[in-house]
Amino acid sequence: MSASSTATPARSVRWTGDEFGTLTLIDQTLLPVEFKECEYRAVEDVWEAIKMLRVRGAPAIGCAAAYGVVIGMQGSTHGTRDEFDSRLTEVTDYLAGSRPTAVNLFWALDRLKSTATANAQLAPAAMLARLLSEAQAIEIEDREMCAAIGRHGAELLSNGDGVLTHCNAGGLATAGDGTALSVMFAAAAQGKQIHVYADETRPLLQGARLTTWELMQREIPVTLICDSMAGWVMQEGRIQAVITGADRIAANGDSANKIGTYSVALLAKAHNIPFYIAAPSSTFDLSISTGKEIPIEERKSDEITHGFGRQTAPEGVNVYNPAFDVTPATHIAGIITEKGIISPVSTENVARVLKGR
Amino acid sequence: MSASSTATPARSVRWTGDEFGTLTLIDQTLLPVEFKECEYRAVEDVWEAIKMLRVRGAPAIGCAAAYGVVIGMQGSTHGTRDEFDSRLTEVTDYLAGSRPTAVNLFWALDRLKSTATANAQLAPAAMLARLLSEAQAIEIEDREMCAAIGRHGAELLSNGDGVLTHCNAGGLATAGDGTALSVMFAAAAQGKQIHVYADETRPLLQGARLTTWELMQREIPVTLICDSMAGWVMQEGRIQAVITGADRIAANGDSANKIGTYSVALLAKAHNIPFYIAAPSSTFDLSISTGKEIPIEERKSDEITHGFGRQTAPEGVNVYNPAFDVTPATHIAGIITEKGIISPVSTENVARVLKGR
Repeated sequence: MSASSTATPARSVRWTGDEFGTLTLIDQTLLPVEFKECEYRAVEDVWEAIKMLRVRGAPAIGCAAAYGVVIGMQGSTHGTRDEFDSRLTEVTDYLAGSRPTAVNLFWALDRLKSTATANAQLAPAAMLARLLSEAQAIEIEDREMCAAIGRHGAELLSNGDGVLTHCNAGGLATAGDGTALSVMFAAAAQGKQIHVYADETRPLLQGARLTTWELMQREIPVTLICDSMAGWVMQEGRIQAVITGADRIAANGDSANKIGTYSVALLAKAHNIPFYIAAPSSTFDLSISTGKEIPIEERKSDEITHGFGRQTAPEGVNVYNPAFDVTPATHIAGIITEKGIISPVSTENVARVLKGR
Repeated sequence: MSASSTATPARSVRWTGDEFGTLTLIDQTLLPVEFKECEYRAVEDVWEAIKMLRVRGAPAIGCAAAYGVVIGMQGSTHGTRDEFDSRLTEVTDYLAGSRPTAVNLFWALDRLKSTATANAQLAPAAMLARLLSEAQAIEIEDREMCAAIGRHGAELLSNGDGVLTHCNAGGLATAGDGTALSVMFAAAAQGKQIHVYADETRPLLQGARLTTWELMQREIPVTLICDSMAGWVMQEGRIQAVITGADRIAANGDSANKIGTYSVALLAKAHNIPFYIAAPSSTFDLSISTGKEIPIEERKSDEITHGFGRQTAPEGVNVYNPAFDVTPATHIAGIITEKGIISPVSTENVARVLKGR
């Protein structure tokens, strides 16, 4: 297992060189069949990579977009600062259109624009260098967040544990080690022997395609199962903990995550196995008091009927395809954040840990 | 819903004409994309249909093989009875090789051979007619078994119920209306408005491919979901009962069925929804006292990694693919058999109902 602590992880988003350098992304659309990294030198290509989901996961998209801005500004260091600022607006507006619903994308672009506003005195060349620093700061903060989640969560796992996860909350979606998977990477780095069971996660199969790939890359033992097998592997005594990510967490700890997470939490409870959520503090939406207020996105039926490339259900069949479900706080043994573990999960404890007290 | 009670069901196995007639099978390998019935006039083609899973499900295979024997004997009515009997051995041995592990296949072939032995006085032409009667008896008994299960089970459903099922326990696998689906057909025929939720049932997608198709044919409202959505649709209040089939039931009522059934039963329990098994008395194996003695078949990993023509997991990934799981009797509200409903499920009640008392 010591190999897993030293294996160099593939990084979803990577900058090489100074402010005239290049961006490298793993083309996640080719995984798990092919591992291919692509180097980007034109903002149009970064736009395409975000649009076509070659880079995915909110934090990873934010980082890629920030570096995309730097690339888009590389040709604007010889004009006036006004020309630079006008081009910056063009570039950020352009990148914002790559995935119009990605909140983290706008957040990263806004952060770079604010940096320019706050540094109006800098000449274009210096401003470009400053934009790169800001993009790198976004990446570093994300990596530190992942590492802190891993550090806190690893304490919850013991040597020999079987750990079940659902969907992909790994490094591919972030600049660092991910959230749920970061916990597993950190436990392995501490020398704990763990064995991960990855739900394939229908309909989009992120568990089969991405989670298994990441764990194999890091040489952590992983077994792929269908979602329908989660209860049975628990019954067989193979699982000692369940850890998943989250997409949105209410003030009381109710957690929205990939469809199927709720079932996994209930099955864990029936087998007296602790169910944990691993997510950064930015996932909390304290404006909503409980999970009842979280709207559930419904997605297109062909994800289910044509998901494997072949038609697998009758033409015209009625389909229900909720993208997320909500696991009540009462079923969650703890929420692992970069600021510490919230446990037991209650409105008071959520507020306390998020405030760093 | 009155339409559903009158809609003519497609029959998986159908004989047309007298003893020189033909066998018609639905080619189940083309479902759900194409509905095609094929007429069979040569025993070699029936052999191929069984081998290639064009007809599947233990009872349906038994019926198809019995009719296959009749077809194989149609050219042997002009010789001696010895010649007829010798050909009968040839034909039954040949058909037995189509699926060497299908117990119901051997049972049906043996029943036709015993009929010939018991009617040694009949001339070849009369014996052929007698074989057809026996094949038809096998079909009729199977249809009556399905109907009785439907009749008993329909009492458990109320107007307006949402009913979840897993895998395919429908008419395609039998000569009649199936087992779990027979209950739904019978409830609909009584004028009860029910809405079925069909788990797609990874890895082989029998729910997506076959269950939805059968229900759509019979004009019963059906919604396809992924297995991971079962818990969430229960939480949303959409489900009032769960009914699945079974492959093997121990003397105490512990039931082996398609992988995922155990999870569905636990999720139903967590939501106070009754979970029922529908299965003929022939499914019980009274030689085993509990489900612990039921061996669980493990199937090949490519069912999960290459399920429908595309690679969906990394090369060389470790996979666990149990074909079945065992639901303890304590999680089963009732077992619906052709002899009545076993409820509560206990060794005593299993014995009592199976003995018809």
